[in-house]
Amino acid sequence: MELIGMLDSPYVRRVAITLRLLDVPFVHRPLSVFSTFDAFSRINPVVKAPTLVCDDGQTLMDSTLIIDHVESMTGRSLMPTDRMERQRALRIVGLALAACEKTVQIVYEHGLRPPEKMHEPWLRRVRVQRAAAYEALEAELAPPSAATAAGSLDQAAVTTAVAWHFTQRMQPGEIDPLRHPRLAALSAAAEQLTAFRALPHA
Amino acid sequence: MELIGMLDSPYVRRVAITLRLLDVPFVHRPLSVFSTFDAFSRINPVVKAPTLVCDDGQTLMDSTLIIDHVESMTGRSLMPTDRMERQRALRIVGLALAACEKTVQIVYEHGLRPPEKMHEPWLRRVRVQRAAAYEALEAELAPPSAATAAGSLDQAAVTTAVAWHFTQRMQPGEIDPLRHPRLAALSAAAEQLTAFRALPHA
Repeated sequence: MELIGMLDSPYVRRVAITLRLLDVPFVHRPLSVFSTFDAFSRINPVVKAPTLVCDDGQTLMDSTLIIDHVESMTGRSLMPTDRMERQRALRIVGLALAACEKTVQIVYEHGLRPPEKMHEPWLRRVRVQRAAAYEALEAELAPPSAATAAGSLDQAAVTTAVAWHFTQRMQPGEIDPLRHPRLAALSAAAEQLTAFRALPHA
Repeated sequence: MELIGMLDSPYVRRVAITLRLLDVPFVHRPLSVFSTFDAFSRINPVVKAPTLVCDDGQTLMDSTLIIDHVESMTGRSLMPTDRMERQRALRIVGLALAACEKTVQIVYEHGLRPPEKMHEPWLRRVRVQRAAAYEALEAELAPPSAATAAGSLDQAAVTTAVAWHFTQRMQPGEIDPLRHPRLAALSAAAEQLTAFRALPHA
């Protein structure tokens, strides 16, 4: 299968790292939904990253749905099977995806329109939502465990680590690492793992 | 469990209809992420609709993750179990969610900022992506079958029907029903079903 999209998208990166952690071989094609819109469009006319091109050529989009597909095809998963543990993992993934979405909205507001078209009330609203997501994530996180260092991250940890690194790279310091020490520590540990180092934000 | 959010959100509505079709009891609290931001914030500080309040009080967000939770708690699902059928359903759900996202982006551009802050190149880009999503959905859809009329919709059909109805209600005629006859027919059949009639766009 082929994974289309750049690793500066947290959605692309969470899928790529998940594939790697599940030992699923894939070809990565880092096309941009902006600078290579037309080339992307020829693979998926909706121009959504990530796009997964399945072995039979069918294209899937949406990171969570792509991970569902990979789980269904391989019988492997980074999600807990215990129902209550799974509920907690889904809560954390939801928070981390919300944090990503809010950072993307801020990036788009600054990057895709001229300054006079930016709307400060929108940016304020999104920042409040993002701060709440990271505050809730920090509260949810147990201190990084030995399991994290050993590389057996679950989907909640992968998505949280990717979200944190993305926001820090795109808007350094806007979410203060000193006020989110568990998130900062999880991210630092995760970025040392082979799967994360092989698939860096870029 | 409690489902928080208004049914004019296609993400809220797909969850509500899924719960109903799976016979999962829930309380619906139609709070707005805009007009009742503070009340919503007290339930989920990230202010994301839909939010699901689980029986133990934990809150989940993101429609796909909420549906995953409901499936895991009940052992019931609207997704096919056959791997290739599931792949196709995931493709359709991804297209339908992309169509929803693009309509939401257009609604937000018009509704959440003054006219002088609107950015036409952004709207053009989003409209191109949305048109591609609906074109692909139309191509994917088999003509509505007897099963549809009998109420045994799968998740692909539910999300597609909700997406189509949402876009038509918010921006009538922008996606031409005459050029998407299968989508229009699926939507018309779905909106006659008890689950859809009980949970109308509003």
